Amino acid sequence: MASAAISGEDSLIARYFKPIATDPGAFGLDDDAAILKARGEDIVVTTDAIVEGVHFLPDDPPDTIARKALRVNLSDLAAKGAQPAGFVLTLALRAADDAWLTSFARGLGSDAGLFGCPLLGGDTVSTPGPLTISITAFGRVAPGKMVHRRGARPGDRVVVTGTIGDATLGLDVLRNGTVAAALVDDAAAKAVLVGRYRVPQPRNALADAVRDHASAAMDVSDGLAGDLAKLCAASGVSAVIDAPSIPLSAPVAALLDHGVVGIEAIVSGGDDYEILCAIPENGLEAFVHAAGLAGVAVASIGTVIAGSSVPRFLDARGREITLPRRSWSHF
Amino acid sequence: MASAAISGEDSLIARYFKPIATDPGAFGLDDDAAILKARGEDIVVTTDAIVEGVHFLPDDPPDTIARKALRVNLSDLAAKGAQPAGFVLTLALRAADDAWLTSFARGLGSDAGLFGCPLLGGDTVSTPGPLTISITAFGRVAPGKMVHRRGARPGDRVVVTGTIGDATLGLDVLRNGTVAAALVDDAAAKAVLVGRYRVPQPRNALADAVRDHASAAMDVSDGLAGDLAKLCAASGVSAVIDAPSIPLSAPVAALLDHGVVGIEAIVSGGDDYEILCAIPENGLEAFVHAAGLAGVAVASIGTVIAGSSVPRFLDARGREITLPRRSWSHF
Repeated sequence: MASAAISGEDSLIARYFKPIATDPGAFGLDDDAAILKARGEDIVVTTDAIVEGVHFLPDDPPDTIARKALRVNLSDLAAKGAQPAGFVLTLALRAADDAWLTSFARGLGSDAGLFGCPLLGGDTVSTPGPLTISITAFGRVAPGKMVHRRGARPGDRVVVTGTIGDATLGLDVLRNGTVAAALVDDAAAKAVLVGRYRVPQPRNALADAVRDHASAAMDVSDGLAGDLAKLCAASGVSAVIDAPSIPLSAPVAALLDHGVVGIEAIVSGGDDYEILCAIPENGLEAFVHAAGLAGVAVASIGTVIAGSSVPRFLDARGREITLPRRSWSHF
Repeated sequence: MASAAISGEDSLIARYFKPIATDPGAFGLDDDAAILKARGEDIVVTTDAIVEGVHFLPDDPPDTIARKALRVNLSDLAAKGAQPAGFVLTLALRAADDAWLTSFARGLGSDAGLFGCPLLGGDTVSTPGPLTISITAFGRVAPGKMVHRRGARPGDRVVVTGTIGDATLGLDVLRNGTVAAALVDDAAAKAVLVGRYRVPQPRNALADAVRDHASAAMDVSDGLAGDLAKLCAASGVSAVIDAPSIPLSAPVAALLDHGVVGIEAIVSGGDDYEILCAIPENGLEAFVHAAGLAGVAVASIGTVIAGSSVPRFLDARGREITLPRRSWSHF
């Protein structure tokens, strides 16, 4: 009878997730709740879910699915200027597949360690539908210091980290689209783009610099153009972007040069998980210096201006680029 | 072009959820993250998801689905001795149906107000699969005072709130099972049971008393027998339960008397969302008094004993009741 006390769900949690729940506040996942110690800081809370067939593909490697689920949340914490403090996981599974769960838990544990963001608790439920992973992540920031979407002021520089467009073109590769056809003989370029789709690179190393210097920030998850429009709307400002200044990886730059993709697709695709922020002119040098120390590439791509119009993207000759669709939306 | 900046997802959030996100830390859902002020207390974190067809039925009223999603989490906070502080919501939807979302948001907002647990943020994603609602809820408790599953000691009384078995029999009614057949002419009884399945009654009014008096506690979500076994296992103890002392509602007592259901089904069904706790003998009177003031019924149903065997349930003659299945498990 003793074994009846341990359900399949409990043994699944014990086997795969207990080993990575090392924080004392997780109580070894043996309790119904976790404790997050506050230490006098504000707790920043963010939640993002990823759904099979929507945010990742059914045959993506399980460890990359886990990493993506956590990293899309880490990216929000970074953009808010917060340091990771932990996360809880809800996993809706069709079945408990040992090989899949082993790989998933390994990826999750690896990233939890890498980013200093321990697993605190979770819930595992069965679903007849697509695999769905919902994570709520917590960060710490000095009281009142969270960086908001609102706060950008005319004259601020518009700055973005890393490179834009890789992930959306990586998805095109996985779907055998035009990018896949253009790169048919370039396995290395395809691997770079696919890697960026499957495993975002959240810029948590830059969180303190964002906290210290940004007047407004958010992460770019639904497309640079649409997310910039959201930041501007929240701040009551507009912006002008110099499209040739938008940082591109070598494969994306080549695809753009060869006319395989247009800049419209690059700035309206999703899944970048870079930080978009507004930096006052007098803080730009210090921000760039801090970014250099943190090892995160940053690029100034335009200027915040007064007004309420949607941000404009200008080409090398100063002509406005038409953007038929600015961002991804689920509905 | 301006409308392109507001995606369907954003307008969905603004329309339905912004009106109920009244806490200052929610920033009107206009930001990427929320702030939970710590105030020197421990933050208790719990997460529970509910899936269409698994935890609720496709034609359940949307407002009850919202209430259930929040209340299963509130129930965890109550059992941990914590006061609600807020929650974040992840909603995976097939489509944005106006009537459904209006009712869902109304139920959610109503319960957020009723339990003092404000909506702080969330994520809305599309899914081709079943509607899935994941909530992470936060509570506050004095540092170090969270009540754990472990901590029960031999001699403690085993106490449970409310009544046991209503919800699992309510599900049987909805599925037109044997209970539905037995109650074919008793609409009132059916309504009571179905109501308990659809809308749990979390015992948050009892949280302070649990914090002050319980040596161990958890909420009963997967069946009394299985959950008691978990509490005992975590505490390194066993228990003996006097089955006739288990509190039953009038309809469940009648169904048991008439042989429609056995006590095994009642103690191994899920969805009770009552508090199960161990109360040291010398604190029992004070606990019962506090429960009376809080308006929560409590019943002493047995005793914690030394040992590691699975808790035994005894009938009125002291004979052990065989429990083929002690609790619900997803896998």
